[in-house]
Amino acid sequence: MSLAEPRAGVACPAGPLRPSAAARAALRPAAGSRISGGFWQERRAVVAGVCIPQGPALLETAGNLHNLRLAAGLAEGGYRGALPFLDTDVYKWLEAAAWQAAEPDSLPADLRADVDGMIALIAAAQQPDGYVDSWFQVTGNGQRYQDLRWGHELYCAGHLIQAGVALHRSTGRTDLLDIARRFADQIDSVFGPGKAIDGVCGHPEVETALVELYRETGERRYLELAGYFVDRRGHGLLAPEDRRGRGTGPAYCQDHVPVREAQEVTGHAVRQLYLLAGVADVAAETGDEELRAAAERLWAEMTARKTYLTGGIGAHHDEEDFGDAYELPSERAYCETCAAVASVQWNWRMALLTGEAKYSDLLERTVFNAVLPGMSLDGERWHYVNPLQVRDGYRQPDGDHGARRAPWFSCACCPPNVMRLLASLPHYFASADGTGLQLHQYATGRYSARIADGDRDGIGGEAGEAAVRVATEYPWNGRISITVAESPGLWTLSLRVPGWSAGARLTVGGEPVESAPEDGWLRLRREWRAGDEVEFELVLEPRLTVADPRVDAVRGCVAIERGPLVYCVEGVDHPGGGLDDLVFDPAAGLTEKQDPALLGGVAVVRATGWRRGAGAEGGWWPYRSLGPGAGEGTGNGARQGADEEVRHLGEQVEVTAIPYFAWANREDGPMRVWLPTR
Amino acid sequence: MSLAEPRAGVACPAGPLRPSAAARAALRPAAGSRISGGFWQERRAVVAGVCIPQGPALLETAGNLHNLRLAAGLAEGGYRGALPFLDTDVYKWLEAAAWQAAEPDSLPADLRADVDGMIALIAAAQQPDGYVDSWFQVTGNGQRYQDLRWGHELYCAGHLIQAGVALHRSTGRTDLLDIARRFADQIDSVFGPGKAIDGVCGHPEVETALVELYRETGERRYLELAGYFVDRRGHGLLAPEDRRGRGTGPAYCQDHVPVREAQEVTGHAVRQLYLLAGVADVAAETGDEELRAAAERLWAEMTARKTYLTGGIGAHHDEEDFGDAYELPSERAYCETCAAVASVQWNWRMALLTGEAKYSDLLERTVFNAVLPGMSLDGERWHYVNPLQVRDGYRQPDGDHGARRAPWFSCACCPPNVMRLLASLPHYFASADGTGLQLHQYATGRYSARIADGDRDGIGGEAGEAAVRVATEYPWNGRISITVAESPGLWTLSLRVPGWSAGARLTVGGEPVESAPEDGWLRLRREWRAGDEVEFELVLEPRLTVADPRVDAVRGCVAIERGPLVYCVEGVDHPGGGLDDLVFDPAAGLTEKQDPALLGGVAVVRATGWRRGAGAEGGWWPYRSLGPGAGEGTGNGARQGADEEVRHLGEQVEVTAIPYFAWANREDGPMRVWLPTR
Repeated sequence: MSLAEPRAGVACPAGPLRPSAAARAALRPAAGSRISGGFWQERRAVVAGVCIPQGPALLETAGNLHNLRLAAGLAEGGYRGALPFLDTDVYKWLEAAAWQAAEPDSLPADLRADVDGMIALIAAAQQPDGYVDSWFQVTGNGQRYQDLRWGHELYCAGHLIQAGVALHRSTGRTDLLDIARRFADQIDSVFGPGKAIDGVCGHPEVETALVELYRETGERRYLELAGYFVDRRGHGLLAPEDRRGRGTGPAYCQDHVPVREAQEVTGHAVRQLYLLAGVADVAAETGDEELRAAAERLWAEMTARKTYLTGGIGAHHDEEDFGDAYELPSERAYCETCAAVASVQWNWRMALLTGEAKYSDLLERTVFNAVLPGMSLDGERWHYVNPLQVRDGYRQPDGDHGARRAPWFSCACCPPNVMRLLASLPHYFASADGTGLQLHQYATGRYSARIADGDRDGIGGEAGEAAVRVATEYPWNGRISITVAESPGLWTLSLRVPGWSAGARLTVGGEPVESAPEDGWLRLRREWRAGDEVEFELVLEPRLTVADPRVDAVRGCVAIERGPLVYCVEGVDHPGGGLDDLVFDPAAGLTEKQDPALLGGVAVVRATGWRRGAGAEGGWWPYRSLGPGAGEGTGNGARQGADEEVRHLGEQVEVTAIPYFAWANREDGPMRVWLPTR
Repeated sequence: MSLAEPRAGVACPAGPLRPSAAARAALRPAAGSRISGGFWQERRAVVAGVCIPQGPALLETAGNLHNLRLAAGLAEGGYRGALPFLDTDVYKWLEAAAWQAAEPDSLPADLRADVDGMIALIAAAQQPDGYVDSWFQVTGNGQRYQDLRWGHELYCAGHLIQAGVALHRSTGRTDLLDIARRFADQIDSVFGPGKAIDGVCGHPEVETALVELYRETGERRYLELAGYFVDRRGHGLLAPEDRRGRGTGPAYCQDHVPVREAQEVTGHAVRQLYLLAGVADVAAETGDEELRAAAERLWAEMTARKTYLTGGIGAHHDEEDFGDAYELPSERAYCETCAAVASVQWNWRMALLTGEAKYSDLLERTVFNAVLPGMSLDGERWHYVNPLQVRDGYRQPDGDHGARRAPWFSCACCPPNVMRLLASLPHYFASADGTGLQLHQYATGRYSARIADGDRDGIGGEAGEAAVRVATEYPWNGRISITVAESPGLWTLSLRVPGWSAGARLTVGGEPVESAPEDGWLRLRREWRAGDEVEFELVLEPRLTVADPRVDAVRGCVAIERGPLVYCVEGVDHPGGGLDDLVFDPAAGLTEKQDPALLGGVAVVRATGWRRGAGAEGGWWPYRSLGPGAGEGTGNGARQGADEEVRHLGEQVEVTAIPYFAWANREDGPMRVWLPTR
């Protein structure tokens, strides 16, 4: 059998994504995934114990709740903040709280009161016909749907819908879903073929939300509206305004080309990937092969040419957008945390749609190395942007989009986005296809799948629940112990073998099993019994990585990786002169050491390098001529000969690398992922 | 004698900068500089024959004149454009026309009529108390001087003053100067110690303009007001507004630190350098050593750490600002044309203030390689930004700040800035200090200086006019023939030997002269007679240049330079596959050929390289592991061994390099200055 064959009729569990029974997807999210220990549980405990509880006060301080109160007529004063989409911070926090409520230890009572209060507030702000948007209701800055390019009304609606779906799916509670449906119905009454408005939102997001609302309610018109919004992009419905020539143009707003015709990802990275998540959703629910092909094509283009080693995307600060192919500067990499969240969401949809392991490869890389660095280890401070290099003497820009963590942002999209992702993370780790259970990611916990057709391929077997318990110290240790907890008999346990892996060892019941991965999957089809034990081990040795030579920014550099983790060096580990003059020796080898006391417990990698000596003195110009006699005529310019270059290699130093996700947790200082070699 | 000793009492000619007799500057602009042939005359002929004549129609189409008419009550409708400083395009065009009017062939009659019309329009728009600003008068968007951070009122005033001074200095005409003085007086009545407003403008420019107004009128209060504006920066008078956290913050507006305390250039590059031009002016006129030291310190910091090989400055698109030290990406280099113009202006002020050759070294590099690329060879199209690399498949961003030339811009600061600079260019080429004439730049023409004290150092000599004629094909040919046209007897002819020069040959009257340059100057002090001939030759061989290793963006790359010119390769000269896969062979040598048919006649440099073969097929990930066994476990990722790397070096190709100033004149395509080596 192939995992890529679509299997219909499999029920799906609670989680952000629940394909309908009719969906043409290879895989479904597995039922009942639970993370109960290890690395991810620690990170998620911070979200549950620190980030989500802090949310209500932060939303109060930043004015988001005040703005909704203004819209509800419950407060006086002016709209706070300068952005029209501040409602979404509330919605994303509610979504995070909703997923958290599905966890075994659920939400504490005071947070449930906050949830109740916010829902009551949104209900009070909602207008009789279902419309709710504090910016437009309060500022009077334009009428409804007249500023689709920058107004973000449908974007706000999308996040409201996702929060309503999450709370319903997670707890059965219907009030927020009802509010969301009323807004969706209002939108559906106005937008679409033959209706009052032929238009799309400048910020995609409602597309994927409407598909999920269809899945939750069974109302097919939501799916049709999502398909309409997907296909009306790229037809110039959002004519660019003259706003200093940037920030709201066609590519930025994803209105530059119909997505079916697009050949490359471009424009605002979050907008592009939210759109592509919606494209994957519509393709799955409609079986539209052209849309699926577009999503596959654009994923391949993005991955091969516009993705950082960390999985981060979006090279430019200017418009938070993708750069050209291979334009991936380390310093000033934008890599917005929200874009990484969007990439996880899109990759998971692609993994389910196609059954291909590469999407979960990129998901793993991204969640470890592009989402997690956005949140400090203690959950108190955030990165909006995630550069791969911070120089000695780095200067934080005027705004809050620099390399230094902040407790919150004037545009605070990222923190609640990380919260909602990590609160629902188990959902992204395992899938089912009716014939088995696929483990895409490895975390201590329990994962189960409904086996629908045990008699597939004629061997026979019962329908029923297949469940496994996973115990692992991954990503610090590559051993993954899997115990079958429930089995209806014959089914396939599939284990993803990450692309970075140099080898995997496998035993079943203590017996070595020779099994080569097929397209990234190890597939174990057999009669499983409760108590069967599978030991799976990925080799986690530190390794050196180089980039395609077209990635000019890191020419002559190597990066250190270990398992799924990208490493970096920080100034705090290299006293006596910063990092700008560090030269790495790739020949000297790497050693690793688990350090339980450092950064909450990480594997540290040690290597060797030099600290380059200071340049020739007295030169005012940082460029010099090569070749005999060059530049000898006058006193200007830095001049060095070959002898000098050797001398300038300077003292040998020990290089200490830590996981990139843990950087900027000790002090503000220089950092780099890519290390220059001699 | 030293050129750095200030010499007072020397009269100065027409030109943008005319230090007062009391100024504490080592040098003064030379009287009567005229460029009459060769490279710069060709470029200036395009400005005079194409750019300046096109100005009035472009200003009409873009709405600048309409806005002034609205302010004057002479038109109906709304303010056109979204920017509050559109008046300055008119003022800068007037300044360009004013300098052009001083040229031997002057301005044609129809352009004189345009000048008359614009001056009448500004006069009509000016309010009774002298204030004139079409944005504030027309839009009613705020009251005068209430939005100093973004309103640009004093910036506009500065350009009006410079235009008024230029027209007066160039032609003796007083009407525009009178308008400007009335605005300056209105500003002076409101701003300053003990006056109604203690504030500065978010965009420096009025500082240097007020110093020039002082020089032109003798009114010392303008100098004092300039000094006040210089020193009130950095005290938080411009509190940042919440505008998405960027674009108007303290560093952007040059309000982050008092300039006397600043240790590095930062923030918006044009703002920073306009301010520093004003700092140099105030330092020269007041003898303020602390201000002079700040300017010298910031110049050294900028040059050593934040200047591109082209002389371009400003690494970031986001806020048009400086990056961190050594953060100089080639792709997406911002290098705004206006910032290069500002650098020329500031460098000339520093050259005159100090007498040091290095400032004219950087001026030469900048005007050839950072200003000129902003204008197409035919004068019809412009670059706002000047990247050092454009990739295969480059995608122009939504706005007009990309790598493709445009006929005009929504923010059209650059074109008239280039016009006013090139129209006044002879002014920047030679100086006088009372004891001699200094040639800073080499262009066919006539340069003269007043010799005030022929008896200095006791040798004796007459006061009077020293003049030389220069004939040269520089920068194509290094021979510079200098003939003394007038001589009062004993004086010093000083020739700048550029820092890039590998050697200079000199004969006087046909006799070789051994004379080592001293701090970049060859100084020939003798009794000169009319008809004396000096032959000076700079060796112009193509050379390879590398960057300080901290410039991460160009690690493993070389650039080609020849004389003052930086070279680049363009896709059009390398058919069959773009430039992303070009690998340069630095060992293969460079050859040069003058090609009179190409790009108006340029020296082409030829070299050798390879075109790298395509990467390993089938990989979806552009990063690969080094080392044995790495990445062999699964089918993902691009994998190459050492053997493959050699194979992938691919076919040998001829590399053709052209001067960077002439790029983007044949077709839109890829380009790069820095060439990867094997």
